[in-house]
Amino acid sequence: MTRPQPTAQPVDSTDPKGAKALSSQATLARLREYMVGPSRFMTLLSCFELGIVDTLRARPGLNAAELGTAVSAKPDAVEQLLFLLVKEGFVAHDEDSGGYRLDALADVAESDLKRALAYMNLIKVTALRQLFYLTDSARTGTLVGLKELYGAEGTLYDAVADHQDLNDSWLTLMNTVTANIDPWFFANVDIPAGAQVLDLAGNTGLGAIHTYRHKTSPGLRVTTFDLPDKESEALENFRAQGLQEHLSFIGGNVFDEIPGGFDVVLIKHFLDMFDKDEVLKILSGVNAALEPGGQVHILVPVYPEDIKDTDNYNVDFFPAFFLGAAMGQGGPQKLSVYTSWLEQSGFKVTKAVTKNAAEIPPDVIPVQAILSATKIA
Amino acid sequence: MTRPQPTAQPVDSTDPKGAKALSSQATLARLREYMVGPSRFMTLLSCFELGIVDTLRARPGLNAAELGTAVSAKPDAVEQLLFLLVKEGFVAHDEDSGGYRLDALADVAESDLKRALAYMNLIKVTALRQLFYLTDSARTGTLVGLKELYGAEGTLYDAVADHQDLNDSWLTLMNTVTANIDPWFFANVDIPAGAQVLDLAGNTGLGAIHTYRHKTSPGLRVTTFDLPDKESEALENFRAQGLQEHLSFIGGNVFDEIPGGFDVVLIKHFLDMFDKDEVLKILSGVNAALEPGGQVHILVPVYPEDIKDTDNYNVDFFPAFFLGAAMGQGGPQKLSVYTSWLEQSGFKVTKAVTKNAAEIPPDVIPVQAILSATKIA
Repeated sequence: MTRPQPTAQPVDSTDPKGAKALSSQATLARLREYMVGPSRFMTLLSCFELGIVDTLRARPGLNAAELGTAVSAKPDAVEQLLFLLVKEGFVAHDEDSGGYRLDALADVAESDLKRALAYMNLIKVTALRQLFYLTDSARTGTLVGLKELYGAEGTLYDAVADHQDLNDSWLTLMNTVTANIDPWFFANVDIPAGAQVLDLAGNTGLGAIHTYRHKTSPGLRVTTFDLPDKESEALENFRAQGLQEHLSFIGGNVFDEIPGGFDVVLIKHFLDMFDKDEVLKILSGVNAALEPGGQVHILVPVYPEDIKDTDNYNVDFFPAFFLGAAMGQGGPQKLSVYTSWLEQSGFKVTKAVTKNAAEIPPDVIPVQAILSATKIA
Repeated sequence: MTRPQPTAQPVDSTDPKGAKALSSQATLARLREYMVGPSRFMTLLSCFELGIVDTLRARPGLNAAELGTAVSAKPDAVEQLLFLLVKEGFVAHDEDSGGYRLDALADVAESDLKRALAYMNLIKVTALRQLFYLTDSARTGTLVGLKELYGAEGTLYDAVADHQDLNDSWLTLMNTVTANIDPWFFANVDIPAGAQVLDLAGNTGLGAIHTYRHKTSPGLRVTTFDLPDKESEALENFRAQGLQEHLSFIGGNVFDEIPGGFDVVLIKHFLDMFDKDEVLKILSGVNAALEPGGQVHILVPVYPEDIKDTDNYNVDFFPAFFLGAAMGQGGPQKLSVYTSWLEQSGFKVTKAVTKNAAEIPPDVIPVQAILSATKIA
């Protein structure tokens, strides 16, 4: 509950030592921003989870006592949590009446808030506690937090099969965002009429379905390639869409052998899960499976070429998320790095485009890119 | 791994609807800042915990492979974690050589970093995982996280007795900061020569020892008042300082009866742990124990009178910390609120001073205040 005395530190901006002291002060202030990251995050999310925001939207002007009754929490707790939202200008507080009403939050469209909350829930459920073990995860290359908290030995993507809370949080996010990013991806890749397409690590077939919907042509056939235990659900999904004649499934592991006979391979939401050696193995495997002239289209979040670019938040999230919460390895790379890895793996890159940050809603963390490449003879 | 399409949202700053859209965009961007709070926090702390920062201080210029060997982590993981520190300008990266060196972090004094790291460790150990349960804690007024993670039923201050990791993290911080804030407190309170002083909730006697050291006078006697189980350690601490003739201990509970016969009561690091009703009970109890003219001196973190004051970070941290990690209730108040509560409890406030934010190192979260008051006849 206490805090230290100031260190006596005379600052003279004309003196190099003064400039150094100033820079040190700015760095320490930045450390404080980092320190309040977890508490800010959960204070805000709790105001949504408790229903305070929805209650204020429906009944503006309620005071802390009335809000406490409405959301079943002690008025003192409601008041404490709302201090931060008032500081931020998210919520307004009338000192005289004691009433609260939505301020900046009133202007945000419900669909935007819903998207932001899906992300916040993902971060809370799959990462917040797990990141406590980030250092051990980085040392061991395993998800120590997932082991400690859930007794799970594998990755987050394995654990969602066994744990409803992880699955709900993950699926809600993925369903929202896949539906949103796929139109951009398919608008930017060329799939020849009648092509035979392989969707690498295509899970239970959603990517294959989207490929067919966005790129349909006579003779187009899309095959989902993933672990054999995904097959029955994938086939069920194909039938439910009435696409069982155009879509199929092959069971296998991308690190063993990738099936041949395809013109185009799609690799979506996958390369960022692995370290360099594994990415190169995957790309070489895809190269081996294609004939010369065969194409690969990759969708992956990327770091900006100038890592100090403040518009791109991938760096603020993905290293910790992949190392400590999702994989125990991996993380995005710069577009230039993926380009170079494709070239090392026998491809000529024909397109490398990063989504314009200005076209991404400002609450959304991932900045995605598309890389298209052709197998050289 | 994906992110949504932009919503088509034409912005025209001359049009009120455009202004509204802009404000919505700014709010969504602010939500993203909140979202990356936990991952930023742990990425930075892990770079310290892994020894990356110390290694670079000793051996500037190491590349990711060399750093990986030095800190026993995979080079890929080191590179991923360091992206954020390079983005922040904490660490510099030479693209040609691949070497890293401390940048802004090189200018921060070791004692400053040590203080910041004590806070970061406190936040990690006592709060990061626990805050997952903040909503349930706010609903129940109990520390659900402490129960789930440690099987502990009481407060953080109870749990430190049984759990070494909580205790280490807590004590390291408290020892640092108590030693730093007490000189300011005692420089700003008047303790008459020969006074009989009661240190309310004085734990194992450190406050009594500091009182005697800072305010010694012939006949001065300081008594620590706390739960009976603190007595033997407090007496031992008094003897170890050779102060057993001047310091004593009374066992009891502040919510039952506060002992009388004292001229001055000190309440340090305590009122912020409780909700309004409990604070008023404590202040009334102190009032009942004093004779008219008797004095109380309070040290407590406070929120700024203008809650939107961006220099004061108490609001960004303490509500979540007290509700979700330390007490299941409580949190600081504004200086004006404590003043009003003192007046309601039969005191005349003679001094109310908040520490100047400019005098607090910029990494330090708590902004403290002193309130002095006299029992009115």
